[in-house]
Parts: sequence; C-alpha cells; structure tokens
Amino acid sequence: MPKRTLYSEDHDLFRESVKKMYAKELVPFVEEWETKGLVSREFWKACGDNGMLLPDIPQAYGGGGLDFKFNAILLEETALAGTTGPAFGVHNDIVAHYIHNYGSETVKSHWLPKMASGEAIGAICMSEPSTGSDLKAVRTKATPVDGGFILNGSKTFITNGINADVAVIAARVGDDSGAKAISLFVVACNEKGFIKGNKLNKVGNRSSDTAELFFEDLFVPTENMLGEQGSGFIYMMKELPQERMSIAISCQAAAQHAYDLAVDYVKERKAFGKAVIDFQNTRFVLADMKAKLQVGWAHLDACIQALVDKELTTTEAASAKLWHSELRCEVVDNCLQMFGGYGYIEEYEIARLWRDARVMRIYGGTSEIMKDLISRSI
Amino acid sequence: MPKRTLYSEDHDLFRESVKKMYAKELVPFVEEWETKGLVSREFWKACGDNGMLLPDIPQAYGGGGLDFKFNAILLEETALAGTTGPAFGVHNDIVAHYIHNYGSETVKSHWLPKMASGEAIGAICMSEPSTGSDLKAVRTKATPVDGGFILNGSKTFITNGINADVAVIAARVGDDSGAKAISLFVVACNEKGFIKGNKLNKVGNRSSDTAELFFEDLFVPTENMLGEQGSGFIYMMKELPQERMSIAISCQAAAQHAYDLAVDYVKERKAFGKAVIDFQNTRFVLADMKAKLQVGWAHLDACIQALVDKELTTTEAASAKLWHSELRCEVVDNCLQMFGGYGYIEEYEIARLWRDARVMRIYGGTSEIMKDLISRSI
Amino acid sequence: MPKRTLYSEDHDLFRESVKKMYAKELVPFVEEWETKGLVSREFWKACGDNGMLLPDIPQAYGGGGLDFKFNAILLEETALAGTTGPAFGVHNDIVAHYIHNYGSETVKSHWLPKMASGEAIGAICMSEPSTGSDLKAVRTKATPVDGGFILNGSKTFITNGINADVAVIAARVGDDSGAKAISLFVVACNEKGFIKGNKLNKVGNRSSDTAELFFEDLFVPTENMLGEQGSGFIYMMKELPQERMSIAISCQAAAQHAYDLAVDYVKERKAFGKAVIDFQNTRFVLADMKAKLQVGWAHLDACIQALVDKELTTTEAASAKLWHSELRCEVVDNCLQMFGGYGYIEEYEIARLWRDARVMRIYGGTSEIMKDLISRSI
Amino acid sequence: MPKRTLYSEDHDLFRESVKKMYAKELVPFVEEWETKGLVSREFWKACGDNGMLLPDIPQAYGGGGLDFKFNAILLEETALAGTTGPAFGVHNDIVAHYIHNYGSETVKSHWLPKMASGEAIGAICMSEPSTGSDLKAVRTKATPVDGGFILNGSKTFITNGINADVAVIAARVGDDSGAKAISLFVVACNEKGFIKGNKLNKVGNRSSDTAELFFEDLFVPTENMLGEQGSGFIYMMKELPQERMSIAISCQAAAQHAYDLAVDYVKERKAFGKAVIDFQNTRFVLADMKAKLQVGWAHLDACIQALVDKELTTTEAASAKLWHSELRCEVVDNCLQMFGGYGYIEEYEIARLWRDARVMRIYGGTSEIMKDLISRSI
Repeated sequence: MPKRTLYSEDHDLFRESVKKMYAKELVPFVEEWETKGLVSREFWKACGDNGMLLPDIPQAYGGGGLDFKFNAILLEETALAGTTGPAFGVHNDIVAHYIHNYGSETVKSHWLPKMASGEAIGAICMSEPSTGSDLKAVRTKATPVDGGFILNGSKTFITNGINADVAVIAARVGDDSGAKAISLFVVACNEKGFIKGNKLNKVGNRSSDTAELFFEDLFVPTENMLGEQGSGFIYMMKELPQERMSIAISCQAAAQHAYDLAVDYVKERKAFGKAVIDFQNTRFVLADMKAKLQVGWAHLDACIQALVDKELTTTEAASAKLWHSELRCEVVDNCLQMFGGYGYIEEYEIARLWRDARVMRIYGGTSEIMKDLISRSI
Repeated sequence: MPKRTLYSEDHDLFRESVKKMYAKELVPFVEEWETKGLVSREFWKACGDNGMLLPDIPQAYGGGGLDFKFNAILLEETALAGTTGPAFGVHNDIVAHYIHNYGSETVKSHWLPKMASGEAIGAICMSEPSTGSDLKAVRTKATPVDGGFILNGSKTFITNGINADVAVIAARVGDDSGAKAISLFVVACNEKGFIKGNKLNKVGNRSSDTAELFFEDLFVPTENMLGEQGSGFIYMMKELPQERMSIAISCQAAAQHAYDLAVDYVKERKAFGKAVIDFQNTRFVLADMKAKLQVGWAHLDACIQALVDKELTTTEAASAKLWHSELRCEVVDNCLQMFGGYGYIEEYEIARLWRDARVMRIYGGTSEIMKDLISRSI
Repeated sequence: MPKRTLYSEDHDLFRESVKKMYAKELVPFVEEWETKGLVSREFWKACGDNGMLLPDIPQAYGGGGLDFKFNAILLEETALAGTTGPAFGVHNDIVAHYIHNYGSETVKSHWLPKMASGEAIGAICMSEPSTGSDLKAVRTKATPVDGGFILNGSKTFITNGINADVAVIAARVGDDSGAKAISLFVVACNEKGFIKGNKLNKVGNRSSDTAELFFEDLFVPTENMLGEQGSGFIYMMKELPQERMSIAISCQAAAQHAYDLAVDYVKERKAFGKAVIDFQNTRFVLADMKAKLQVGWAHLDACIQALVDKELTTTEAASAKLWHSELRCEVVDNCLQMFGGYGYIEEYEIARLWRDARVMRIYGGTSEIMKDLISRSI
Repeated sequence: MPKRTLYSEDHDLFRESVKKMYAKELVPFVEEWETKGLVSREFWKACGDNGMLLPDIPQAYGGGGLDFKFNAILLEETALAGTTGPAFGVHNDIVAHYIHNYGSETVKSHWLPKMASGEAIGAICMSEPSTGSDLKAVRTKATPVDGGFILNGSKTFITNGINADVAVIAARVGDDSGAKAISLFVVACNEKGFIKGNKLNKVGNRSSDTAELFFEDLFVPTENMLGEQGSGFIYMMKELPQERMSIAISCQAAAQHAYDLAVDYVKERKAFGKAVIDFQNTRFVLADMKAKLQVGWAHLDACIQALVDKELTTTEAASAKLWHSELRCEVVDNCLQMFGGYGYIEEYEIARLWRDARVMRIYGGTSEIMKDLISRSI
C-alpha cells in the first residue's frame, strides 16, 4: 500500500488500537458469526467500551467528537481483517448521522449514547420488496393519528435487521405518490407492530444479518419524525453520499486484503517446480492489481478528505461507490483464481471474500443506479 | 437458442425422455441434494433404469451403443435443469471411457454393466494436494508386489469422491520422477486401504460431492492396471480432450439457463415504473449475451461433431474448455446483476448458478493451464 | 486455423485460384491503393476476367451461378491478403443482390453482366448525413414525374462512392415520414444530377473509396425502381443480414491475418535475450486469441451455411456482425501491442490493420444498433 | 472535472496564461503541424519568450525556478488543447533534468538557457532498433579516445528526432555487456557524425517528429559525459519515474479532452428522434468514463505531489504510466464510437485523438514492461 497522507498521528493511534482490539475480539469470532449469520452483541458492546463507535458524533451524545476519518479507519480495518460482519457503515455513518442531523433533542439524547456504547444497534430501512433502488416509490405508509403516525408496510434487504434496536424508516405520509410525501421516522425495534422477518440467506456477507421487516399498525410519536415532514427524500439524497463512501472505503480495503492474501499464497505455493509467483502471468496479474489498488487508495483518500471538508458531491460519491465496488469484485476474482482449486474451498478465506464482494455492486444502489446518478451531472 | 443441426431425430427423442425423467426425478430434489452435498443413489439408479447412463459404451457392456452426442444431451439437459449435481461428465465421459478403452476384459465386464445400471458410480483420481494441475508430478505410489501393486498416497478435489464405487487412480510405479512412470488403476472403493476423507465444503457445486481420498497399503491386482504400465500419462492426455468437452458442454448450457432465467425475470420485474427489460442498458446487456450464446452454440456443436468424428485435437478441446467456462462466468455474473438484491439471496436460483459457475475456470485444468496447452500449438 | 467442413473441393479450387490471382494482381498494389485512396479499375476488370465477381448470381446474367460460399471465399481471401480495399461485400453481396432480387428484367440484363465483368462497380446508398443508422428517417426525396422520379438529397459514408458506376439509392416518395414511403432506385452514376462529393479522409480502410454523394434533380425512369414502390425498407431489412454476414466474414479473416502476422513476428523478435514468444504473457495472450479465433471460425461457418440454406435470421446476422467485429478489434489491438514501437509505424502492416479494423464496429450498423436489433428478439 | 487541491493560485495564473498563449499560437496550427509531421520552431521560440519552458529548472540557468507542477500544467494544457505535438515531456521533464542533475557546469550553462528560450530543442536517445525497452542491452558504443569518446550506433523512436538541437545519448563504454558499462552523453545534433534518419511515419502523434538517428564516428568531449562513467543505467532508472509521470499526466488530460468532445457531440447529435445523450446506453458509457476520470485525476494529483515531494517510487510511477495510458485508450475508443461514422473521418478531432492514444501503452516502456517493473516490488 503506498504512503497515505490523509491521516494524522491521532488517526494512526486509533488504527493501532482498533487493530489490537480486532485481533482479540473480532478475528477469532469471524467463523462463528458466519455460521450464525450474526455478529454477537458482545462484540458491539466491546467496541462501545473501547470508544470505537460513533467516532464523529459529538461527545455530548456519547460520540467521539472526532472527524469522519476515524469512521473510515474502522471501515478499513474491518475489511482488512477479512470480514463484512459488523455493519459499522450503517450504524456509525448512516443511522447515527440521520439521528444526529435531523433528530429532535429527545431522540438524539435517547438513542445516540446507546448507539455509542454498543447497547443499541442501528438499521436503516429504505428498500422495499417491490421498489428496490427506486426510493421515490416507497410504499410503506405513515397515517397521521393523534400524537403521531401509524406505520404499515414492509422493508427488505435491511442490514442489521435482526440485531437492530433502533431503525430509521422511510415512509409515505398521505396518498401523494411523489417524493415530497416521504418522511423519516426513528423507531425502537421492540415496539409493538415492528416485526422482524426471517434472516435472509445470502450468497455472502453471511455474518452480517440481513432481514425483511414488517410494520403492522406500528405507532410512532410525532417527535420521532426526523426533521420536516415531507423532507425524507431530500435527507436521503443528502446522506446517501456518505453511505456510498462507506461502501467505497470497505471495498478498497477488502480488495487490498484479498490481494495481500493472494500474494502470500503464490509466494508459498509451488507448481510445475517453481513458486507460482515466478510465473510471468501471475506477476502480471498481480502487478495490474497493485497498480489499480494504488490508484484506488489515492482516489479514496481524496474523497474522504472532500467528505470531511463537506465538499464531496453526490456524483463524486456515486462514482466512488461504482468504481471501488467494481475494483473489489475484479480483484477478488483474480485472487481466487490464484488459489486454484483451493480458492473454491470454503476453508480458504479467499472463497468467502469472493462471495462477500459480489453484493457491493448491488447494495447502496446498484452500479446501474450509480451510472444513472452520475449521468445526470453530465 | 438458434437452430442446431448437430442432432438427429433419435437424439431429439432421447432429449425429450431425459427432460421428462428430470422433471420427475431431478428437479424436485435439487435443493435436497444441495443441502446434503450429495446426489442420492436412487437418482443414479433411476437414470440407469431409464437407459440414460453410458450412452456411448457398447451394448455388450450394458451401455447404449450410441454416439457421444447422447452423452452431450445428458450434460446439456442437466445444466439446463439448473444443477451441477450428478457428475455425468465424470461417470459417462471419463471413467467409463478409461475402463472401456484401456481395461482388461475382466475389468470391463465387471464394472461397465454396473456403471450402466447406476449401481456403481465412478470417480477419476488425478489431482493431489501438492501437485494440482501438474499431472506429471503425481506422487501417489504403486509398489509392485506379488500379483499386483500396493498403492499409497492421497488425492484431492475428487468429484463423486463420497458416492464413488469405482475409481480410476493415477499412480507412479517405481522411483522415476518422470511422466513415463505413471500408470492407471481401477479400484473398488470399498477395498481395504481405500479411505474416503471429508466431503469438501465448496463455494458452489454443492450437490456434487467432492472429497479427499487416501490410499493406505491399498492392494490392486495386476489385471486392474489400465493398458500398459507407464502409459498412464499418455492415456490421460488422450482422454482429457473428452473431459474438457464435457465441461465446455455443461458451461454452454448452464450459461443459456442463467440467461433464460434472467430474461424471464426482467420481463416480470418492474423498476422506476416500467419493466426492467425496457431499459436500454438491460436490453443491450442481454443482447450482448444472446450474441455470445449464439456464437457458443455454433462452436460447441462443431466441437462435438469433431469429437464424434475423432478429429478434435487437444488444443481445440482446451480452447473450448477455456472459452465456454469464461463465457459461463461472464453470463451468470451479468444475470445475477439483473436480479438486483434478489440475485444475492440463495432462495433465487441465479444465486446458486453464480456460485456454481466459478469452479469451471479452475477444474479440468485452470484457464491458465488451458492457455499453456494452447500456446504449445502456436 | 481449425479444419473447416463448410467448403467442398470446388470451393477449395476457387480459393486457390483467388490466392494465385491476388498474389499477382492485389498484394503488390495494396500500398499504391492506400496512397491513392482507391482500388484501381484494372483490378476490378481483372477480377471480372477471372470469373471472380458475382459468384452467386445466375450465369444468365453473367454471374458464376454458384452459391454464397464462393462470395465468402472472396471476402476471406481479401482480408487474409491484408486489405480492405476492393469492397466485394458491397458489390457482390449487396448491390448485385438488390438488383437481382428486385430489379426489372431490363435493369438486371443491363447491369449484372457489367458488374460481373468488372466494367461496372456498384454502390449502395443508404446513410445520410443527419440520419446515420436510422434508415426509417431517410430524407432523400423521389418526386414522381412523368415516366419516373426526380431525386434530390444527399448520402454519406458511401463505399465505392468514387469508383461507382451503378448505385442503389434509398429515397422517400412523397411526404409521408414513415418507413412505408421508402423505395429503392437503380441509377447510373454518370447521369446528370448524380454528383460525387469529395473522397472522405478516413482513419483506415483508405484503399476503399468512401464518399458523399449529392442528387440534384436526378431523373430516374420508373423501370429503375426496385420491386414495389414503398417496399424499400422491407427489402433493406431482408438484405441487411447478408450485408452483415459479409462484414462478419471479413472481420473473422482479418483477425486471423493479424494473429498470423503477430505470431510470425514474436517468433522472430528477441527481447531481454529470448524470443518474444517465449514470454508467458505473450503465449497466454496468443493462446486466448487462438481460442477465440477457433470459436469464431466455427460460428462463422454455421452462419454461412444457414445463409446459404436461407435460414439465417436478422437477429443471427446482427449477432454475427456484432461479435466478429468486436473480435477483430480486440485481436488487432493485442497484435499491434506485440510489435512494440514498430506496431505504431505505418511501414508495418499491423499498423494499417489496426486502423482498418476500427470502422467495423460502426459501419453496416454500429454495435449499438446491432444490440438494439438483437434485443427485439428477446 | 472535480475540484483539484494540488494547485495554488500561482499555478492557476500560469495555466491561464498557457491557455491564452495556446489559443493564439498552438490551436490554429495543429493541423499544419500534423500535415508536416513537425511542430514549428517558431512555436518553441514563442513558448520560450513566454517563459513557459523549463519551469522547474533554476532561474540561474534560464528556467522558471518553479516546481514540477508547472511542468504538469504545460502537459495538461497541451493535451487538453487536443495535440501531442510539442513534446514538452521530453524537453522539460527529461532532457533538461538529465542535463541539470548530472551535467558539468559547462554543459548546463551552455544548453539549459538555450532550451529555456526555445532556441534549442532536446531529445533523449535510449531505444535502439534491436533492443526496444531493454535498456541494459544498449549497443551504441562509446570508444574512449583522447579528450573524449567516439560514438557509433543507432537509435530509433526518438521523439523530437528531427527538430532536436541537443540530445542525451545512452551508449556503452567498452565491451562489457552489463548495465554498468552504460554512460550518458550530451551532444549537439549538428555535430559531424550525428545523422538524422527519416522521420518515422506513425499511426498517430504525427505532429510530433519521431526519427531514427545514426552515430558515425561522432566525437563527444569528456565533459559532455553526464555524471560518472558507467552510471548511465542508474541515472535512467532515477529519471524514468519522472518521464513516466509526464506520460501519465498527458494521458489523463487527453482522456478528459476526448470525453469533453464526446459529451458536446452527443448533446448536439440526434438519432432516432432524440439527442444521442438521451439514450441510456450513451449515458451509462459516459457515466462510467466520468467516474474513471474522477478516479484518475485524484490519483494523478497524489502522484504529482509525491513527485514534487521526491517521494514517488519507481513502482508508483510505473503504475501511473500503466493505468493512465490504459485509461486514455479505453476512453478515446468509447468516445470515437459515440461519433458513429464521423468518428472515423479525419476531419473530426476524435479520429486523431484515437490514433494518437495508441502509442501511450507502448512508449516510455510498454504496459508489459510496466507490469514487469511493478511485479518486482511485490
């Protein structure tokens, strides 16, 4: 990995502490989480105890009072540790931000400290079975009643859907079909009418729990609406760049991790009487990946800095999401091939990394949605 | 699929009977086999009862007395049914051919009728843990003793490794390190010293059992040696084109199947207010795949005909294996993307097809090995 | 090149005679034609004298009375000789076919013998400056007058535009904007009002003259209308598959030729102390191309046979045009790279082949148009 | 183009002055230079008069006394103006640097002011007909004589080969075949024995003169040797990263320029009744390019900064050269396609851009050499 200038000494210290904590609390449990399809709540608590959660939320709400680069480090280290399990992107970078940026004081004071301590895990509920990436078409309905709203509808592909304690839900108030009828609501997941469906059995990312959720006459008090009524779509448009950067960061680090594993393997593995790395084809494929990883790190760092400076545009974030997710898939595919038959055996980490990567071109908006978004700026 | 001229009416009738039989005996069981990691022996028996096994082995040995095109139809229909489970390529196209082409009369009379009836399932044992695709480097040792040989060593990535009743094993007689020391042996898998290891947990192809095998002082009588001592490598070189064509056939049909599923899906699925197929990008990606599938079928048919005519060269078979396996992987990847988030959920067949495809660029010789082989003819 | 079964002994004899004739009459003149931007009329005459033109037109009209495979051989040999100069595809496969299939007896008797003898060179006038591949939008106008029509309008990208003696022109009769107003007309290029514009200066294909044409009050007698009035669009749709196959055939053979040149070069050329072909990367890139060329030949032959059998569909021809033109561009690009700096120097044939190839993804309908066409059949 | 943070206000002012100067002195002459195969000496003089040459050479030697970012701006603006003609990379970034970093005071005082004024144009002579990118294999011989050396040999692919007034030549002193026998010499191109061969007729980059050079008993005084005898190879290794960055910078800007042209065109051009940009395929292809260009600019800027900070490694520069040259070729190819038939006509700038781009994957070390270099660091 080339030298990066994005991070200060404080960031480096944080990274070191994360690495140490992961060696003890994460790495030994990845396989267990994969099997269970769930990261343990103990791990989330331990992260909270170590002050790793909500890095860029003010200390007044239990956060770290730091900048987004600390969030980025968490994402990088998680991917470099070879797992997609703990969905910090959703928890830290998305849910906490919605609550902090648009929540009432009550909501912020209630949920953010719990999220910072790892006591409450967050989920964001946008996709629906019939609408996919078309957020304007959200059908979940919020019917105004005395003191609040009654929600009815369903969501799918919800990361942390099983573990979640607090959810931000996009729903439509009234019968208007447009984007302007969408509002966001903060809901405790143990409320009556908040029903967790089955955990989805996914191709990869298995230690990250993904679920369908159903809302049946779920009451939400008015103060749990985020910001202005009817501004939900606008808020989502504002926050999506950050979500997409979270994905881009994870993708770049995961690609690097796969590359590192492959390099180690081909240096060890012999074929036809010499180390696999000594074949020109191996060297060329690795070199091509190394070049692309270098390009990727430079781009990523520029985007993170722009995000911290509040200058990253929707188009730029979409481009980052598109490019880094494509890179990740290309790299893991090349790397698996380098393991030969062993790459296809689950015992080898590369097999899981390959399965894990594929969803990246789909969630947070498919590559096609990203291209559509980018094209609007041309 | 464009009109094919390869097949006669007899072939078409056989295909229809296979389709009918599969609808009853295969399709309803795929999920069960996937979970168990094993195709049921009942299915093999049913295939034997229906006269579907060993199509191109003489009737004198219980086979169909037909041509390889019938084998091809079996491979195509299995892939078109969406499974990689029953490894007919290994059983019909490889093991039965080794035994028939090089076996003593005793061996042929004993095993071929059992293989034709589905009573005995075949496996071919070439790859070893440390040698991979480098067949010249086989280490399994066959020590000459009175009346036969004692085999010691291990094999890995053995398809049908758990189900197998009869195995063809490549082993080295004596201490010579070259290819000329390799011989092939036919062994009953329930012999003392033939030890089946654990079923390998693979990324895909899960209904096809793959295992490590160990040979500990396994006695093989002289008459169970195939052909001439020291000719094993030559035999393998002769038979590998057929094995590679089996893979190429499966790949082409599996790609077609994934494409068909995707077409059906995008015609049904709506996004942003219209059917997904009505987006130009969807249509262009499908059109590109349709063109490649057309090219693939034409090429496949030419190769099958050449194989039947005994004119298919090693280079041509390697080219077919390379090209059709790359096509399959490209197609399933594009198709999964068309399902959006659902493509990543195991409930959807495309998810499995995507996992299944990846090994095709690895087994039967990796894409790199294919390129190496082809390059020797330049 | 793998063994082909498409051709009979008669075809092979024809190919041999073409090869011999080309060695004397074509190969030595390619550079001159490239410089002049024009194939000499002497060459066309010589082809006529050798009975090479209009192979599949009945002998009654001066043609060879043979099948389209002879046309295909001409296309293949021209590409294998390294030139795109003599546009036999346009002359033999398109213009002669329009005239033969839809022309009045007068028109056929007048033009076909001249075209067969090489006395008259044909051009097809479809594309217009503002409409490109959108044939329904043709604006050239044919105004009915006593005894015929007056044509006004312009065409562009017309192959043989300078050399042409006879042209088939698509024009719109009346003011209707739809496809049903389009008719086709056969016109002698020396008629008053038929104005040849400048030769277009193209990136490649320079020995093939391409021009803009202008029609200013060009009178065309009624009997020179092809077939039924208003059926022009239907005729074009019927003939385009043949045109696209012509392109596909040229592309496949041109790709093979570039590959052959590259193989010869890397066997001779030394780098870092060994022949360039002895580098694994060189071997792998060549092997990949060799596999694709094999696939391509098999597909091409299946399509030619289907065309001869009148079974090739519009979709299949579009797929062939798409795939083989993409193959050609990929192959010439890889091959140029193998020549290092010399590949960029015009003295080396590969440089010209690279420039020549690029238009193939554009003319006869762009790759995008092909995908659109194919998608209509899904 | 996303916002860049690399440049200060001084850089921006310089860029503006370059833009203005180019509008008057470069853009109107590009076609003429293309035809002549040579940039006019008047243009070089005008650049010198405007203080644009040798930006990062100390003012004591006539340079700008600035940093390399000014060199980068020149490269960017030249490419954004759509030409590859004036080879500033060779003159400013390579030849001037060799002379400044390793030249004797006499050599520096003599040549650098002339190069800064545009009076003398520089060339670097490394490649030879039989050695290509294999610098260790240089055969040009420098035989020690009284007071200096006698050079004999030949070079090829020499940029500015015709225009050059001063050349840096790599030659071998003595008979040792290794890299340690190579030294560098500064030579005036009008010396006896310095023979300029024919201008090479290239596929593109035609306004940049490229030539073969021959040295026949060319006397070079000792003081014209750069640095230590036998250190030539080491110096080249040190300077090559800068050369490769020059190419990377040009490639990125040229890709951006082609993209900008294509965007303008598809916004204007109509097809099938709407603007070409309104087709989803057009938008997606553009979006994908826009994303890659964004990634490229971020990476480029990080590399330029690292170069200025003297921290850019050989591997990083090779990665940059590899990636940005591949990007350029991909982008120009996509863009040409968007012009349809017009993209193939020389009248349209995109046609030239497409031809110009292809050499970028070859010169300054082929993509294969880059991969080889990168692989050494793995």
